[in-house]
Amino acid sequence: MRNLTLLTDLYQLTMMNGYLNEGLHEDVVVFDMFFRQNPSAGGYTIVCGIEQLVDYIKNLKFEDDDIQYLKSLGVFSDEFLQMLKNFEFTGDIYSVEEGTFMFPNEPIVRVKAPIFEAQLIETTLLNIINFQSLIATKASRVCNAAQGDPVLEFGLRRAQGPDAGIYGARAAVIGGCTGTANVLAGKMFDIPVVGTHAHSWVQKFNSEYEAFAAYAKSYPEKALLLVDTYDVLGSGVPNAIRVFDEISAKGYNPLGIRIDSGDLAYLSKKAHSMLSAAGYENVSITASNDLNEYKILELKNLGAKINSWGVGTKLITSSDWPSLGGVYKLSAAQEDGHLVPKIKISEDPEKINNPGYKKVLRIYGSNNMAEADVIALDDEKIDGREPLTIFHPVYNWKKKTFTNYRVKELLKPLFIGGKCVHEQKSVMEIRQFCKDELQTLWPQYKRITSPESYKVDLSEKLWLLKSHMLSEIKTPQ
Amino acid sequence: MRNLTLLTDLYQLTMMNGYLNEGLHEDVVVFDMFFRQNPSAGGYTIVCGIEQLVDYIKNLKFEDDDIQYLKSLGVFSDEFLQMLKNFEFTGDIYSVEEGTFMFPNEPIVRVKAPIFEAQLIETTLLNIINFQSLIATKASRVCNAAQGDPVLEFGLRRAQGPDAGIYGARAAVIGGCTGTANVLAGKMFDIPVVGTHAHSWVQKFNSEYEAFAAYAKSYPEKALLLVDTYDVLGSGVPNAIRVFDEISAKGYNPLGIRIDSGDLAYLSKKAHSMLSAAGYENVSITASNDLNEYKILELKNLGAKINSWGVGTKLITSSDWPSLGGVYKLSAAQEDGHLVPKIKISEDPEKINNPGYKKVLRIYGSNNMAEADVIALDDEKIDGREPLTIFHPVYNWKKKTFTNYRVKELLKPLFIGGKCVHEQKSVMEIRQFCKDELQTLWPQYKRITSPESYKVDLSEKLWLLKSHMLSEIKTPQ
Repeated sequence: MRNLTLLTDLYQLTMMNGYLNEGLHEDVVVFDMFFRQNPSAGGYTIVCGIEQLVDYIKNLKFEDDDIQYLKSLGVFSDEFLQMLKNFEFTGDIYSVEEGTFMFPNEPIVRVKAPIFEAQLIETTLLNIINFQSLIATKASRVCNAAQGDPVLEFGLRRAQGPDAGIYGARAAVIGGCTGTANVLAGKMFDIPVVGTHAHSWVQKFNSEYEAFAAYAKSYPEKALLLVDTYDVLGSGVPNAIRVFDEISAKGYNPLGIRIDSGDLAYLSKKAHSMLSAAGYENVSITASNDLNEYKILELKNLGAKINSWGVGTKLITSSDWPSLGGVYKLSAAQEDGHLVPKIKISEDPEKINNPGYKKVLRIYGSNNMAEADVIALDDEKIDGREPLTIFHPVYNWKKKTFTNYRVKELLKPLFIGGKCVHEQKSVMEIRQFCKDELQTLWPQYKRITSPESYKVDLSEKLWLLKSHMLSEIKTPQ
Repeated sequence: MRNLTLLTDLYQLTMMNGYLNEGLHEDVVVFDMFFRQNPSAGGYTIVCGIEQLVDYIKNLKFEDDDIQYLKSLGVFSDEFLQMLKNFEFTGDIYSVEEGTFMFPNEPIVRVKAPIFEAQLIETTLLNIINFQSLIATKASRVCNAAQGDPVLEFGLRRAQGPDAGIYGARAAVIGGCTGTANVLAGKMFDIPVVGTHAHSWVQKFNSEYEAFAAYAKSYPEKALLLVDTYDVLGSGVPNAIRVFDEISAKGYNPLGIRIDSGDLAYLSKKAHSMLSAAGYENVSITASNDLNEYKILELKNLGAKINSWGVGTKLITSSDWPSLGGVYKLSAAQEDGHLVPKIKISEDPEKINNPGYKKVLRIYGSNNMAEADVIALDDEKIDGREPLTIFHPVYNWKKKTFTNYRVKELLKPLFIGGKCVHEQKSVMEIRQFCKDELQTLWPQYKRITSPESYKVDLSEKLWLLKSHMLSEIKTPQ
């Protein structure tokens, strides 16, 4: 396991050193991680990366050479550096279950810990969850567009570095992809790996036919033949059919073709006709070439005869929306032994946070569909027995009362008192959980463009606390 | 050093296994890495990541558990798996020097090796160079916009995974950033680290003034005070001035303020007036908040009083153009003992590659400015003594002859016969090299929007070879 302890912003360390100087370093604080917009202006976000967050926290340890390096910067006290030697995380971390769909402004990770510890972990916590959630969400959108066809993750060569390829493949599978071309990700996470041959294979032989025949000799039932090196309809598909005839004659089932350039709608329809006429109407026709959810949707609408999708660059980078803007904001801090709610005003009203130590509940109607989420204070009792009224966070005249409902608490413990209480699940289990959960989300929130906004409201108690704090705020001097 | 040997696409391994089955695995081939468009529709691309490419090649080794994993996939022969146990890279790799500005369609890395080896390394070679070149180029653009002001890399929390944060910080510094907030990158690459405090520091104290005073107590000359937690002009700047007065009275030089929200043009001008009136006209005014080269250019044009720029998400993800589409194309292959040039036609004319074993030369005029690049066959003698005529790669009536010029060969050896001949340089040396090189590029190619296109032509010999191959091509059957 990699030690990422030093993977943090310098200001976390200067603040930690400063808190130590002030004698405030053991004060317990609460930070919420949340985001303010769904990626790609979509209707939901799949939370992903929780396993890697747990690994990161478990492996926190400043090595001697880390301390030496920090000392060399000349800004830290010896007492501080000494404390880092014995650093370990002793706080509580709660998060939603990996693969859960979530919405803007909801806490998805909640950290309660001495400020000395809570501050150190901010940057990498955000880095891990922001990226994997981004890609899982993008994959979910692409799979929605593919309407049940398999979607294969092909993006490693364009991923933003090795980790982006590795953890991006993991997130893509959690979000719904059938497999990845990334062999290391396949090994690390026990997820399906896929792939056959490249244009260079075809170029290496004296003819396209010889290249196809050689590939099929090695892999008679796994030969997805790439037909666009020279001319898809003029040579690629005829050569593929010739090879399919040969392997069929030997008793094997041909797998199919891949088209990686040109007019995918036209070419796939023509290729499908040619394959059907030759008796191969059921083989795979895989398309690739800078695909994303929008292009797949359009190809579907054009009646393209594509039944498998290889998606690379635009999935692995979430190219139209390449970051989830998750933040980590102080919502409560210990003062004289008590946790006091905290609020940040900012120049920008939409950046005002929800104060206090909070939880998130999902409200299900009688049909087991998710109807709304409510952010409440942690000590509120909301169990479905009493009618529940929830309040719009900004337009306070908007409220809604539920009577026949059940609730699920979304934040679950990962660490309590520094001890890991999280039970690891396999990636394929998380993928299934994500799929099952999405069944409880109405289709209008899953639309690729212009989805409806899912309701995320505040409990009455939280709403009153926030209103009160805002009315009390004077610009502090 | 991490072992990334298994970080490859599955099809590389299935092709390798297939070549072994065909007895072609030892055939020497040539692959060129090149890209087809500069990121952000800019005028050039900074090549970056060469050191990590060298590390990757040096550390290639299939471990026993890698072999075990591959065996479990059930598609590889025992002979193949056995060969992987002793796998090492034995070929030649040439690349341009890290930090060189390059242009579309020029080979930036050239691999000549047995196809068994050349194929394995494709994916990670592309992954490393694509990402770091993307970020170095974005950083260069941001620094161009900042017109000499320091630019600080703040993006770790929004980077696409840990590596993207770490290697992105490295690339950003090579591209011109003054430093990074990323502590681990600082340690790994010996680059400057920067950063002071967050909003949470201000929230943690009873008042903004107390927070500033406490920070300045720990870091009297390194306190860049964040003034927008409550109200920049109403409280932030006045409190900062009060603290500056206190530390000045003790004989220290105040560092400055940071503004992270709101109207940065207006707020910075007002803040500058207030600071000047108090005698602090020369302190740093750092701005942050989703900045990129376009916003910085606009703020400069608005006369914003900002002299230092913290750039995060939009730099570390290159958000408007989040991938460099570098490709790795077969340009020659051994047949009967000879290297034969290879070409790929594709459905798309602009994807036709330049065939043959090639080099790239930069042509300098008498003023030491780069006037054009020429792609030539490797055995051509071009040394500046004879007049040189170069040909537009598509519009063949466009040509240009140089008489008074000198040339520089851009591809330099990294590995010869598998042996590393690359001399490592520090990141700060590469940064300086990049800066010096950019001095030889005319300003019209460095414009942030609508730059002129730098000329990248073909030598007569290469141009004739390509024309001949295209005219000879019949769709192979």
